[in-house]
Amino acid sequence: MEFRIREEIKAMKRYVAGKPISEVKRELGLETVVKMASNENPMGASPKVKEMMKRTLEDISLYPDSGSYGLRHELSLRTGRAMEEIIIGGGSDSLIKVISSTFLYPGDEIIMGEHSFSRYEDNAKLMGAKVVKTAMEDLTLHLDLMLEAVSDKTKIIYLCNPNNPTGSSFGKEELEAFLKRVPSSVMVILDEAYREYVTREDYFDALNYLDAYKNLIVLRTFSKAYGMASLRVGYGFADPELIGYFYRVVDPFDVNLFAQEAAVTALQDEEFLHEVVAENTRGKEFFYKELEDLGQSYVVTDANFILWDTQKDDMEIFRRLMQKGYIIRPGGFLGIPGHIRVSISTMDHNIGFMKAYKEVLAEMDGI
Amino acid sequence: MEFRIREEIKAMKRYVAGKPISEVKRELGLETVVKMASNENPMGASPKVKEMMKRTLEDISLYPDSGSYGLRHELSLRTGRAMEEIIIGGGSDSLIKVISSTFLYPGDEIIMGEHSFSRYEDNAKLMGAKVVKTAMEDLTLHLDLMLEAVSDKTKIIYLCNPNNPTGSSFGKEELEAFLKRVPSSVMVILDEAYREYVTREDYFDALNYLDAYKNLIVLRTFSKAYGMASLRVGYGFADPELIGYFYRVVDPFDVNLFAQEAAVTALQDEEFLHEVVAENTRGKEFFYKELEDLGQSYVVTDANFILWDTQKDDMEIFRRLMQKGYIIRPGGFLGIPGHIRVSISTMDHNIGFMKAYKEVLAEMDGI
Repeated sequence: MEFRIREEIKAMKRYVAGKPISEVKRELGLETVVKMASNENPMGASPKVKEMMKRTLEDISLYPDSGSYGLRHELSLRTGRAMEEIIIGGGSDSLIKVISSTFLYPGDEIIMGEHSFSRYEDNAKLMGAKVVKTAMEDLTLHLDLMLEAVSDKTKIIYLCNPNNPTGSSFGKEELEAFLKRVPSSVMVILDEAYREYVTREDYFDALNYLDAYKNLIVLRTFSKAYGMASLRVGYGFADPELIGYFYRVVDPFDVNLFAQEAAVTALQDEEFLHEVVAENTRGKEFFYKELEDLGQSYVVTDANFILWDTQKDDMEIFRRLMQKGYIIRPGGFLGIPGHIRVSISTMDHNIGFMKAYKEVLAEMDGI
Repeated sequence: MEFRIREEIKAMKRYVAGKPISEVKRELGLETVVKMASNENPMGASPKVKEMMKRTLEDISLYPDSGSYGLRHELSLRTGRAMEEIIIGGGSDSLIKVISSTFLYPGDEIIMGEHSFSRYEDNAKLMGAKVVKTAMEDLTLHLDLMLEAVSDKTKIIYLCNPNNPTGSSFGKEELEAFLKRVPSSVMVILDEAYREYVTREDYFDALNYLDAYKNLIVLRTFSKAYGMASLRVGYGFADPELIGYFYRVVDPFDVNLFAQEAAVTALQDEEFLHEVVAENTRGKEFFYKELEDLGQSYVVTDANFILWDTQKDDMEIFRRLMQKGYIIRPGGFLGIPGHIRVSISTMDHNIGFMKAYKEVLAEMDGI
């Protein structure tokens, strides 16, 4: 029998996630596997978050608050933005889908960088929209090219900053120039999933631009620096009218109760966040130095991962590193052949990884 | 400025969930509030589930497995269905949205009972589809009327069994007659969120019909009898080809890690499930007897809630019960004026509720 599936779905592919550690262990018979592939926080989450999770077990059978009141309240206090400007979703992923569903008709266009977060594309295609990808400059988003790509069909531009999977970022001056030039009818989605890790000095607080630019939507997440990827919770800021529309689209119980309670607690433990970012910055400097010693060219990163040109077959490197117990993301999976993307981990793991990587390079040179 | 929002969204309303206990306590200054409004499990979840949640805290910073391998494996073992026939989602809510998104174009039609789960309607409208609601017979789904409503535009029929918000159900003979007559091009979504509570003797295992009817999709959940509404996890069975399409649509990390781990453990604690169902059946018999004594007509229920005709203003009853610390769902919110829907709780709460309800009736008679 032939199912009457929407054509858009037939044209889509399934998202391929990184392999879970348990699967790699099973397949290769390894006891210890270090995953540096999905930009997960190697320090876990705040101990206070874990305590809150245990307390929340009392309410395990209750539905979560569909308005995420407590979390929106806490975010409002900390950012100075009104609760009506805030939406909570089951990860940024969920909010990207909500935004797509709110704006996109078949034939509409979105603009994104050639090497940027793949979920922008998947969710646009789900709505039948056309995905326009603009060239990057040194693996960095080229904002002028993105502006030049705007047509009367463009509804959304996705700016991933810092950009996944390259780690590159842009600063205040570039953002301001971009916002001034972009037509107000085009929504600008500034996805700041990695913002807590940024070290460039000319970074900005995107929320400061919400009043002047009603077409700006800012997305952030608890999955990275807050170490809560398992729980699925992200958040967004936008004009209150838009937030109202988004709340019609998002599932009423999209954000589980544990995620809501944990996120409030995570925001309150600023010390843990500082430790996470400091450890990441140490790791980043370590990678910079090691790669410079090897003469390998990397992308300066403002995220918790680093992408570089191995000048070798990245899929072969991927396989050989896996044999040694390290899972990374090969450029072949990301459309950037020859490169690998490695999540920055604790210093122990970073050092262990770099030792294994050098062995792999030596093995491949010896072939 | 005018946002270019899809017309479908502009026509939608936001879902109104039951008030959280904390909000009622705050508003009314009450110390104890018993919520019997959202069909949550009054016995919580299995203690083994809670232990598993604590163990899972170790992995809080890791992404969940996008394929929910462990949970699909456990469900496969317990049902005898292949893993390829199983999808896991962030609650049945999420799966209803996925199904809508997979099948529905603007102008397509879905059929549902006049008083059935409102999310079928919301998600159909999100895709621009038309919602055809068929009359009920004694607040029970009328399967023949649903078949008669089928047109060449019908893509989906939703059978909620037991039906929310009425509690009524249909048995094996009716299902078989329906499946024989429904065109194979129309998808039949059998939503069995409350199936574990069913006590009618002619109930069936819906999975037995999957081989013969490729247009059948069966939805189940961990939110009710398993007491895990906070965590958001539901599951579905369908033809492997369909499951493949659904997995293109659902967010890769729709099901959080804690939900996946907890659900596997919940399935393994059959004793807890039996206790939950036994307590619910005791509560149901109590309500039947009390309402018969009051001469009030109720709908025979196979769920963990009961709906009855108060022959009074249900909104006024709702308000007065809330003053006494009991939150229920008034028929006014459900399109069934004069009725109230009450979640069956532990016997203590059932008895306390019935005392308060009788007081409210006496107060209103005295007005």
